[in-house]
Amino acid sequence: MPSIKLKPIGSVHNGIRKKMREGWESVVSEIVLSPEYEEGLEGIEEYSHVLVLFWLSRVPQNARGRRLRIHPRSRGDLPRVGIFSTRTQYRPNPIGLTQVRLLKRERNILRVKGLDALNGTPVLDIKPISPRTEFPPKVQVPDWVHRLWGKKPPKAAIPRPRGKA
Amino acid sequence: MPSIKLKPIGSVHNGIRKKMREGWESVVSEIVLSPEYEEGLEGIEEYSHVLVLFWLSRVPQNARGRRLRIHPRSRGDLPRVGIFSTRTQYRPNPIGLTQVRLLKRERNILRVKGLDALNGTPVLDIKPISPRTEFPPKVQVPDWVHRLWGKKPPKAAIPRPRGKA
Repeated sequence: MPSIKLKPIGSVHNGIRKKMREGWESVVSEIVLSPEYEEGLEGIEEYSHVLVLFWLSRVPQNARGRRLRIHPRSRGDLPRVGIFSTRTQYRPNPIGLTQVRLLKRERNILRVKGLDALNGTPVLDIKPISPRTEFPPKVQVPDWVHRLWGKKPPKAAIPRPRGKA
Repeated sequence: MPSIKLKPIGSVHNGIRKKMREGWESVVSEIVLSPEYEEGLEGIEEYSHVLVLFWLSRVPQNARGRRLRIHPRSRGDLPRVGIFSTRTQYRPNPIGLTQVRLLKRERNILRVKGLDALNGTPVLDIKPISPRTEFPPKVQVPDWVHRLWGKKPPKAAIPRPRGKA
């Protein structure tokens, strides 16, 4: 199969230079897109959550998919499972994917909460959550999304109370 | 920023050769991974849903991110919004992302439901859903995921009744 070329659209700014095991959910990051893409963000501030696709640039080329089974988070008490059954960064194509809370947009900059990416990580794509299949605990989407999918708001777009499901 | 190279890990088999506007949710597809990656799928059958990242190979190079604002699904009655506020395939990096129901795994083949990709589409990655942030309507994860995140099962792993939220 032919190889595929991607070009980053921006990068992550959060001052975090070392991998953390825990605590990412409270990290606030700025995703700074190349200024040429600013217009492409129009209307994104109407979403509560977005998906960020980023390039795990610290994974060496020769570590990509070299091991096909791992203990999740190197925990020996958990079973060894296939890499595609985990979110490990050591994947054949090390693309990170995280659903984050969108706090603010200013021009070409998104301020987000919960992005587990180091400072300087190249960003490949920003996608809105799709309430038809992807359900954060409390979700908000633009009015046009309701109109796109019919008169009744999709089920997931009705905010559920936080806490117990 | 330097360009990034990816290599497909497999491809989609579903006999669908033309883009459909609707109806993808009932489409059953087989994702056939290169046999070398079979071991990487171990344990994935314990998930109810997986995320499929695929390459939108029909998008011409010169159409990638050429227009930065569009009417969603070309509907003039909906506002023109930025491409990153939509799931359009005409993105700077045309990576498709869909959460699908995992029906079955057999060796290097996953049978999935709801994948909106044409026959032959290159697949870039398979990720399990992460119940901490991503919530399909009814979710199941391996027991080790509960153990990874603590004694109490994550909220989203408690199946909610189908139907009204």
